[in-house]
Amino acid sequence: MDRSPTEILSERFGDRLSVNPTICAQHGDSEGHHRLLPPDAVLFADSAEDIAAAVRCCAEFGVPVIPYGAGTSLEGGTAAPGGGLCIDTTRMDRIVEVRPDDMICVVEPGVTREDLNINLRDTGLFFPIDPGANATLGGMAATRASGTNAVRYGTMRENTLALKAVMADGRVIKTGTQARKSSAGYDLTRLLVGSEGTLGIITELTLRLYGRPERVASAVCAFAELDAAVQTAIATIQSVIPVARMELLDDTAIAACNAYATLDLPNKHALFLEFHGSDSSVREQSEAVEDIAAAFGGERFRWATEARERTRLWTARHQALPAAKALSPNSRAWVTDICVPISSLAEAISLARTGIADAGLIAPILGHVGDGNFHIFFILQDGDTDAWEKAAEINDRLIAYSLSVGGTCTGEHGVGLGKRDKMPDEHGHEAMEIMRRIKAVLDPENILNPGKVL
Amino acid sequence: MDRSPTEILSERFGDRLSVNPTICAQHGDSEGHHRLLPPDAVLFADSAEDIAAAVRCCAEFGVPVIPYGAGTSLEGGTAAPGGGLCIDTTRMDRIVEVRPDDMICVVEPGVTREDLNINLRDTGLFFPIDPGANATLGGMAATRASGTNAVRYGTMRENTLALKAVMADGRVIKTGTQARKSSAGYDLTRLLVGSEGTLGIITELTLRLYGRPERVASAVCAFAELDAAVQTAIATIQSVIPVARMELLDDTAIAACNAYATLDLPNKHALFLEFHGSDSSVREQSEAVEDIAAAFGGERFRWATEARERTRLWTARHQALPAAKALSPNSRAWVTDICVPISSLAEAISLARTGIADAGLIAPILGHVGDGNFHIFFILQDGDTDAWEKAAEINDRLIAYSLSVGGTCTGEHGVGLGKRDKMPDEHGHEAMEIMRRIKAVLDPENILNPGKVL
Repeated sequence: MDRSPTEILSERFGDRLSVNPTICAQHGDSEGHHRLLPPDAVLFADSAEDIAAAVRCCAEFGVPVIPYGAGTSLEGGTAAPGGGLCIDTTRMDRIVEVRPDDMICVVEPGVTREDLNINLRDTGLFFPIDPGANATLGGMAATRASGTNAVRYGTMRENTLALKAVMADGRVIKTGTQARKSSAGYDLTRLLVGSEGTLGIITELTLRLYGRPERVASAVCAFAELDAAVQTAIATIQSVIPVARMELLDDTAIAACNAYATLDLPNKHALFLEFHGSDSSVREQSEAVEDIAAAFGGERFRWATEARERTRLWTARHQALPAAKALSPNSRAWVTDICVPISSLAEAISLARTGIADAGLIAPILGHVGDGNFHIFFILQDGDTDAWEKAAEINDRLIAYSLSVGGTCTGEHGVGLGKRDKMPDEHGHEAMEIMRRIKAVLDPENILNPGKVL
Repeated sequence: MDRSPTEILSERFGDRLSVNPTICAQHGDSEGHHRLLPPDAVLFADSAEDIAAAVRCCAEFGVPVIPYGAGTSLEGGTAAPGGGLCIDTTRMDRIVEVRPDDMICVVEPGVTREDLNINLRDTGLFFPIDPGANATLGGMAATRASGTNAVRYGTMRENTLALKAVMADGRVIKTGTQARKSSAGYDLTRLLVGSEGTLGIITELTLRLYGRPERVASAVCAFAELDAAVQTAIATIQSVIPVARMELLDDTAIAACNAYATLDLPNKHALFLEFHGSDSSVREQSEAVEDIAAAFGGERFRWATEARERTRLWTARHQALPAAKALSPNSRAWVTDICVPISSLAEAISLARTGIADAGLIAPILGHVGDGNFHIFFILQDGDTDAWEKAAEINDRLIAYSLSVGGTCTGEHGVGLGKRDKMPDEHGHEAMEIMRRIKAVLDPENILNPGKVL
């Protein structure tokens, strides 16, 4: 008697398997501009064993498997272009272990970055990686996410020590160790980090934690000229000042945040800065950056030293995407993301601004400029084909520029569906062929998040 | 008319291909304890094209290819157990580009870490990764090397941004970008870093550079009890003091360095420390560590603030291996290397010391203790089977302990021939199978450094 994969999975998982169209539609959507591509069913997994069993069943029938965290992907990473089973990991939200002495923690993939930090509050430790959204740590590892602290603390690449993952045949592997470093064989941890669910589904992560700095001070510095803000950021990095955060918001982004988060910042361009360290080190760092900013025409720093003020400022920064969408009713956002060597940052941002102005688009620019990384939030109306085409042109031009100066087509949002066609330009056909071979040998039936990355 | 691979290679490369037995013997040896396993021929490559052509020829005939840098491998990484062609990369020693504004450089694989830093002297930048030997950067990337600065600056894993490499079929790929971060697809850079020439031969590296700190201060702190030195290191890390270097040398290691490098340190255990930062930050850091050390019974710091004194101190540290060998005439050194989560460091070192004392061996202990990483230099006489067996027992016991607490069998020396049998214990059979599949698909004829790692 032949049974369908849905029947088999239903029998095992009961009402944790849903074929409800609303639930499927939710899971085929994300925060990006990609169109809704729903899976056929959604499994709310409770454990690695659940995921392994589901993957084994899907492997038998050649059914696509799409892992799902908070659904905050910006490049269509959670879309299901070929249908299949979405595995929602948000119920796997246990913090398995926090080891303050080793400054590490072990978490399930559905734990969000905010929940982890709330849990760590009494340990004196924190986890610094903070994409704008309150993403899950599994999703963040899968997309090699970073955020505002990466300039000082690195990205998920540097801060994921070990993983457990379900591979395409349902086997569970463990990668890495809980030691800070190792030279024992192939770096499967780093191979899975950034593979966007196409090589394996992450079921557990060991992450590095950091001591909360003795002192934290945040400041906003306004600039009449965008280039002055960018030059200040470049000079700060080149002066080797260990800023913890250095975020650029152009005047459109500032206007959006002022309106959405009821800030009262000057309607100019701005750098949001944060300094971590001892009292004297924070003072030294901030004086040095204030000097640099002043030399480029920056205004006096507006300080936020109290935790509450700081939280307000950084919450506003993290809510930049809904704030930008609120600039235009019923709009959608197409968020693109490049990262260039820092000496090319000013030219890249200038190219973006000129393109946006020439096209007459609403498109705030925000960036983790200390890393040479910035985003454009194109705010578009559905059906305004002309505007979408203009955005696409600017995106293409910027990526071409980025690749021409040794940069990347995506600094931290991943490839998903959206940047797939840029991959050969970035990596070359020879390296692409190596990636394809690795995918083919680890997922010969192409069931793991098919159609993404490659 | 059939020609042998040697004839074909000779025709192309002339006297850059050597079958001289002395040269072959040199290239089948290394600094470790592994026995001499010479290749059949050595090619002194001048370019990536040379390497690609040689690999294509070897692929055709199924001839092993063993890449070779400075020959300072400690785990037999350069041995040629199946003969074949050794590719010596030391003539590829060009610094292709230094980009101070982007704090990166591009180098050929035969550049040594010391030569790179000499070249960088006028830029205000430096490259921090420093294994004891003056290794080549290609070899350092291939073995995922680190060294004394890793506690602050990371390892080759964190500091290699991009690579070019010749793969098993002779194709040349480029991986990574010159941007600080990227989320564009599979991390082939990190897959090659640490693969020890078994997946590809590195022909170019883009490396991160760091600004020379405004102030550098080094100090030695002596301890009557080894455990007090270890506890000081652990407490320093747990207090989140950003030490740049924190090296443990036990009394045997100190005696060796005193004799070999004519230092006059107290014949006790010691921590060698270095602090980087501004004047005030260096003062803060060093006062904090001095307080911790004093609480554990450490003596007053002996400072080396002048560049010359510092160089003398760290040169002595880097020459610890020849210094240890000089403890016993005509001896050989078996250097082992584990890395554990820092909370297990004291127990690991105590286990090592007890084992060495019980076995009556000469075996200095040295370590990058800030990372939880340390080495034992077993100083042994050829033919003293009993001593070699005792060393092997201690090594086995230590690795078993390391794995039991979530550590690794090799912190920074790689796997080579020496740690191959420990790999399944560390990674598990499932992950080993994934590594084997990757090896098989990227090097189906198993010609790249066969017999190593897996």
